[in-house]
Amino acid sequence: MHRAFEVTVLGTSSASPTKTRHPSAQFVRMEGDYFLLDCGEGTQLQMVRFGLRMHRIQYVLITHMHGDHFFGLPGLVTSMGLFGRTEPLTIAGPANLEATLKTILESGDTRLPFDLDFIVCNPFVPEIIIKNGGWQIESVPLKHRIDCTGYILRETGPELKLNVKRCEELSIPISAYESIKYGADYRLDDGHLIANHELTLPGNKNRSYAYISDTIYDENVASFVSGVDLLYHESTFLHDLKKRALETFHTTAKEAGITAKNAGVKKLLVGHFSARYHTIEELTLEAREVFPNTEAAEEGKTYQV
Amino acid sequence: MHRAFEVTVLGTSSASPTKTRHPSAQFVRMEGDYFLLDCGEGTQLQMVRFGLRMHRIQYVLITHMHGDHFFGLPGLVTSMGLFGRTEPLTIAGPANLEATLKTILESGDTRLPFDLDFIVCNPFVPEIIIKNGGWQIESVPLKHRIDCTGYILRETGPELKLNVKRCEELSIPISAYESIKYGADYRLDDGHLIANHELTLPGNKNRSYAYISDTIYDENVASFVSGVDLLYHESTFLHDLKKRALETFHTTAKEAGITAKNAGVKKLLVGHFSARYHTIEELTLEAREVFPNTEAAEEGKTYQV
Repeated sequence: MHRAFEVTVLGTSSASPTKTRHPSAQFVRMEGDYFLLDCGEGTQLQMVRFGLRMHRIQYVLITHMHGDHFFGLPGLVTSMGLFGRTEPLTIAGPANLEATLKTILESGDTRLPFDLDFIVCNPFVPEIIIKNGGWQIESVPLKHRIDCTGYILRETGPELKLNVKRCEELSIPISAYESIKYGADYRLDDGHLIANHELTLPGNKNRSYAYISDTIYDENVASFVSGVDLLYHESTFLHDLKKRALETFHTTAKEAGITAKNAGVKKLLVGHFSARYHTIEELTLEAREVFPNTEAAEEGKTYQV
Repeated sequence: MHRAFEVTVLGTSSASPTKTRHPSAQFVRMEGDYFLLDCGEGTQLQMVRFGLRMHRIQYVLITHMHGDHFFGLPGLVTSMGLFGRTEPLTIAGPANLEATLKTILESGDTRLPFDLDFIVCNPFVPEIIIKNGGWQIESVPLKHRIDCTGYILRETGPELKLNVKRCEELSIPISAYESIKYGADYRLDDGHLIANHELTLPGNKNRSYAYISDTIYDENVASFVSGVDLLYHESTFLHDLKKRALETFHTTAKEAGITAKNAGVKKLLVGHFSARYHTIEELTLEAREVFPNTEAAEEGKTYQV
């Protein structure tokens, strides 16, 4: 059975919120690990609304310092402190995030009962910023008005299951099991080489989720997010407002579809909609014309990766 | 007819928001002038929800730098800028508000198309901080964990209406009308003194609204807010949690009632309720036992001063 890997959308608006759309934030679960992608104003309120527990969050990944992606973070960490959190929280984002957050907390003489560990993302080069046993987080350089990085959350566990019966028949030591699950052959004491496929069965494929917001349309993004299972891509405007998209360093729904198609992703989720659109059907349809397996991000809805 | 003087409550929670209660903020209208009292996280979202236009706000009055009273301000001014505001905005609050807000805006390279004019409130002495033709704003020193001031919005226009017929009969020049409306007698050219009551009729009484949040129970507050028509007072806890109230520098519902009674106000509005109370009936009843004309602040509801 697959491990949990799911994304709950908390906000789908661009800079100006509307009656029904909130600023950017997503709550991501990878089995036992919990992530927050961006933290626009009101994120903690959205989490309360949707029954998500903020103390679970271990990693906060901020794309850039515009308010609709960051202004909820001071309130979130303050509330975590009020609820007595003691486990450290890792926060990744641009270089000036740490100093800004600390200035805000100090202005109210707020002392957190837990540590904040900061990771500065390189805005020019993709990097693996966190690596764990079963997954890794990669940053993706984006082109926005200020330093901005998207993120890829990628499972990296073994994709093969051990054929335990066959391994036992061949008296292969347990210490070799891990490398075999990752695809290694095994050489017996008599020098005979056993091919990996004899020792393993097909297991779960590793999955990946890319979160791309905010960016001007950039062909490079497709190669960065190549082959991911689920791609969230900002789609602030319809393509008839391409000029406005260029001016504001945003992407049109059509262009989000083009990136999804060029990257060969399985599914595209569009969001970060301009307040000018009262309904978002047209934006979804425009992306779908280029990339059929497109869905509009909906607040409170959980998407399987 | 009375001029408009009304308070729309946008948030009634204390530090931790709940599913139904948001952090502190109130939108106040005094005829043609509009004020925001505090600006907790999500204030701009609450304004959108309740159909209030943020561009109307001319004055923002912040009590203190705790997040539940301030974290919505960066988002509010950013949105005002996105909507093309050009009129200056006056912001009153503690000494470190200006630098903190500017640090936050600069972190996202946000340049506002309008000016921010800051007023620093004295946390130790009550002062008139803004004075207009028909009203004035006074600061009230409160005792909280950090510098904190409440506010009184007070009408100061003439309370007498001119008896125009009588003034004309006596050939009193129009240039004297204003001082007569404020209670002056008038000396005719022949030296004869006309008493004010002969020249005027009863007009509208000036009204006043006091916003007191956050503070430990402090007897001095009653004298500061003496005789106001409407008093909003924080009531974070029931009185059985008096110890907790002292530790956190907050007031109990009973104490809010005592302050209202000692101050001889017309009506008490309680709010800033701890998240531990799922319903707020008991808090209202506790205050009402001491001061019968008490109402619980409700989000989205407008109260006449």
